[in-house]
Parts: sequence; C-alpha cells; structure tokens
Amino acid sequence: MIDIMRRNHVQVSGNGPQTIMFGAGFGCDQKMWRYVAPHFEENYQVVLFDSVGMGNSDVTLYDAKKYSKLDSYAKDVLEIMEALNLNNTIFVGHSVSSMIGILASIKEPERFSHLVLVGPSPCYINELPDYVGGFDKEALEGLFDLMDKNYIGWANYLAPVVMKNVDRPELTKELEDSFCSTDPVIARNFAKTTFFSDNRKDLPRVTVPSLILQCKDDSVAPIEVGEYVHRHLPNSSLMYMEATGHSPHMSHPEETIELIEQYLQRNGLTK
Amino acid sequence: MIDIMRRNHVQVSGNGPQTIMFGAGFGCDQKMWRYVAPHFEENYQVVLFDSVGMGNSDVTLYDAKKYSKLDSYAKDVLEIMEALNLNNTIFVGHSVSSMIGILASIKEPERFSHLVLVGPSPCYINELPDYVGGFDKEALEGLFDLMDKNYIGWANYLAPVVMKNVDRPELTKELEDSFCSTDPVIARNFAKTTFFSDNRKDLPRVTVPSLILQCKDDSVAPIEVGEYVHRHLPNSSLMYMEATGHSPHMSHPEETIELIEQYLQRNGLTK
Repeated sequence: MIDIMRRNHVQVSGNGPQTIMFGAGFGCDQKMWRYVAPHFEENYQVVLFDSVGMGNSDVTLYDAKKYSKLDSYAKDVLEIMEALNLNNTIFVGHSVSSMIGILASIKEPERFSHLVLVGPSPCYINELPDYVGGFDKEALEGLFDLMDKNYIGWANYLAPVVMKNVDRPELTKELEDSFCSTDPVIARNFAKTTFFSDNRKDLPRVTVPSLILQCKDDSVAPIEVGEYVHRHLPNSSLMYMEATGHSPHMSHPEETIELIEQYLQRNGLTK
Repeated sequence: MIDIMRRNHVQVSGNGPQTIMFGAGFGCDQKMWRYVAPHFEENYQVVLFDSVGMGNSDVTLYDAKKYSKLDSYAKDVLEIMEALNLNNTIFVGHSVSSMIGILASIKEPERFSHLVLVGPSPCYINELPDYVGGFDKEALEGLFDLMDKNYIGWANYLAPVVMKNVDRPELTKELEDSFCSTDPVIARNFAKTTFFSDNRKDLPRVTVPSLILQCKDDSVAPIEVGEYVHRHLPNSSLMYMEATGHSPHMSHPEETIELIEQYLQRNGLTK
C-alpha cells in the first residue's frame, strides 16, 4: 500500500474544525506557502503537500505517463484528502495547482468548501482572436527548446518573468533555485503538462464556490485570463490585487492573506 | 466517523521513511516536546498528538468511563497510527505515555520499531518490601484529596516535585500552567488512571525493543522503578541520565536528544 503521507510529504499543523489546504505552482513546493499558511494555523487545520516530483515528495513514485495529465495530480490531492479524512476543505491553489484543485473539486465536490485560485489559467496558449492565454504556441515551444538545451539558462530566464518585483532579487533567486533543484526531466514533463493543458471546458462543471485572485502585470496568467475564468466559473468572485507578478503569496503575502480572510469572512467561515 | 486527526490534534512534520511519534505525560500536551521533536524532523516523519482531554484535543470526545483505563489511551494511539498508515514507528513516551506506548505495542507490535520510555513506571504505589513504586497509597490519596479541595494548590505542590531543577523556575511554572489549564475533572480522572494503574504484569508481554531513560533524583519514577522495568521488559536497554527530575525532555533536551540518537544509531536507524 502506498503511503500517501510520505509520497506527497504531507504536513499537518494548526487547530480548527475546518481544513485549509495549499497547493504549490509549477516547479515549486510547499515552502513557497511559508509566508501565508502559518497565519491560518490558529483557526484551521493546515495541510501542506508536495506534488510528486517536487520538493520532498517521493520521487521514486514519479511516473512520466501518469503525470502527463493534470487529472493525475488532482487524483493525488483527493487521495491525500481521503487519507486524512478531509471534507469541507478550503483548497488554495497557486497557478497550476488552482487548475488541479478545480479538477479535484469536479470529481469529489463534497471534499471542498471553497476554492481559492491564485493566478489560475485554464489554457496558456493564445487562440486569437477568440482566446487570450498569454503565450504564443511558438514562443512556448522555444521555451521548451531552451529547457532541453540549457536547463539552467531556462530557469534564469523564466524566474524573473514569473516573479516580477525586480527590486527584490531574493524572490527571483528563490524561484530560480526551486526550478533548478527540480529534476530537469520531471520539470520538463510537468511544464509540458502545465502549459499544454486546455481545461477551458472544465470550468462550467465546477460547483464549489471560488475566489479568483488576479495579480497586476502577471505575464503567466494575464488579466484577460482571470476574467475568462471568472466568466466561466459558476459562483466565482474575482478580486484584483495590488500585487504584481505571478506569485503574490511570495511577493505580497500580507495582501494575499487579507484577501483570503475577507473572502472567508464574507462566506461566514471566520470571524 | 470520528476525525482522529482532530480528536487528538495530530500534527505531522518532517521528512523521512520512518516515523517517530511522541506522547506526553500526565497533564501535559505535545508542546512539551518542542525542544526535542524538531531535531528529528530532518530524518524522520514526526508525529505529535494530544491525548483526549489534554492540549488542543477535542474535549467533547472525553468520556470518563472510557478513559478510566490506560488501554483506551493506547487504543487512541493505535487509531492515530491506523489513520496515518504508520508501521515500524519509533514511539517516544514520557511518563504515563511510556506505559500507553507499551500497551499499544502489545496489541499491535507490527506498528512499532522501537519504544523510547522516558521515566516509565508500571506501578506508582509501593508494595513493600517487594516493590518500590515511590508512593505510599495514603500519600497518593492525600494528593487526590488536595486535588478535589484545592486544584490550584495541588498543581502548585506537584509541579516542583515533578520538575525539580529549582534554579529554573520557568520550567516549574510551565508545568504548573499546563496542569492548571487542564479541566480539573479530566485531570483528576486522568491522575487516577495514571497513578492507580498496575501494569507490572504487562511488561514481560512486550516484544518491541526499548530504551529506558532513567533520570537522577526522579520523585515520580525513582531509579528502583526504572531498574524494575529494565529487569522485566524483554530486550530493553537502560540508560542513566545526568538529568534530574521527571521531565528531562524539558529540563535537559540536549541530553535527551543525544541518548535517543545514540540508541537509534546503535540499532542502525540513523547515521
């Protein structure tokens, strides 16, 4: 029997009748939530995890075929929830993890109370003029080319594009290091799964209410994408952040905490 | 279905293929392990919990009849292990939790790799001249009397007797506060369960190898008791600590860590 807790390096802390679970973005692990998650320990059971292949997950369980689909990552989330007997959970997902949370909530909605989607995108590739995803297919393929030929060069290029906030180079450095500490083959597979998935048709199938946090000047999930998600996701709220870039939980943790708290309060979850 | 994770306020941290689980003594909760447990996070999955009625456990699930037996506390430990799918676990128990770990290991030995028993006592009451437990029955009854009439007075009396190390009054204060923050009725029941249990006949039934940590000048579990446990517990090692009092994990955490590490290394568990 697979030990789910170790497979995903699941960490449980905090105290409260309801659980809040945080999922990290591409090339990242649970450490990225360290400025935000501890805030919720006072009133919630907090669950953190690493996707297989990332952070301190059990990399021996990585299977390229399995993890070529976001659905497999969603299944892992549901297995963690099952292992911990979680229901009525607030799932906070950054970037690709927001889409993973969406897919998991479609499969087992009873596990979820609310979704908090930080920089979600159902489809990264433009289909002009109908859909603005933010990336041309050719540009993305060029990025994968760079990833193959010069992984470190790719990480050095992508990290500042994702993070912005150039006045705080330590943030970009951390993201770069996180990319670089991931196995390059796994990173490439995960990047392909992330950037070539098209989950636009899944959005209307979501029944769990959600909050979309949309950053300013986000090159990965631009405003058009956040607004698209809001239009197609039933029962969603969209909030525009002051934060810039694609990682507000790292660059602007106070605002991220504040907006999540406001949303939970409006929904009667915290006092 | 009872949520075991919340019932016992289970916290999971750390990273490693093997789990080390810490159980707290009478009137205490997992916070008491805060000087020792984090050391093991680098190489182990660390599991902390609060017994029902203590700390941040779900006190609504406290049942005086059920918890009048140490076996029920042992059953809870096994339920936590089942919920987390734990096997081959190192269980570190302080005081009454060492006996709880022993009872759990008799029921489901396959869950346990090793037991670390900090100040264990299978029987607190003297049966002179055959057995030195450390307490006269009359003295204990006087203590329960005080507990009924003046709970705070009782806590003020017992805390320094347990802790020793009078040069560090903050330690005694913490123990006193822990006693005082426990519901007095639950504390009295738990004290009765703890101090009036006689588990001497269970010791020879243990098959899991164990380490006994025996403090100097321990008024709760004196040296005679540690040596009795060692004689009757198959495959046990006894180590005499420099630490004085009954709570070396609080008063002498470095030595406690060091001796546990040495034992685990001798048994091939850590490098």
